[in-house]
Amino acid sequence: MAIVRLTDAQRDAALAELPRWNLRADGLAIEAELKFGDFNEAFGFMTRVAIYADKADHHPEWFNVYSTVRVTLTTHDADGLSERDVAMARFIDSIA
Amino acid sequence: MAIVRLTDAQRDAALAELPRWNLRADGLAIEAELKFGDFNEAFGFMTRVAIYADKADHHPEWFNVYSTVRVTLTTHDADGLSERDVAMARFIDSIA
Repeated sequence: MAIVRLTDAQRDAALAELPRWNLRADGLAIEAELKFGDFNEAFGFMTRVAIYADKADHHPEWFNVYSTVRVTLTTHDADGLSERDVAMARFIDSIA
Repeated sequence: MAIVRLTDAQRDAALAELPRWNLRADGLAIEAELKFGDFNEAFGFMTRVAIYADKADHHPEWFNVYSTVRVTLTTHDADGLSERDVAMARFIDSIA
């Protein structure tokens, strides 16, 4: 089953419920920066997301330095945002 | 005990034995890009480095997308490269 790119209306509706996330300038990805108490907490969070990601076969682009994690979500097979990105953003918000 | 910045000669000698690593343009950090078979392998590698890092109280700056990990090592307390970066680079090379 093909992965369908969200319409602009679907994207905007999803983002309205994800206040932590910002639309990237090109409109093809969403981004969030998360702060933790220390590296142990930050990497613990990343480990939970990693397990989710591999199970969902949908992976983040992410950067970490010490207690900061910056996450970018996009769906290459959809050339933009899909429901998979929204689901991952919701999962991240539920544990961050 | 203060963390001492490597002299240019020490830095160059260390880099000569770390062919995977490149000196960043500003000379204050070393960088490497590592490729793995898939996300599971890449994040498994990151987990090993994370455990090393927190034990050594010296943490990488790193970016991951799927099977690629880009690592930057520097020692903020030394305003450049220290023996801690060389030790971490050696550890990374030993497991990558």
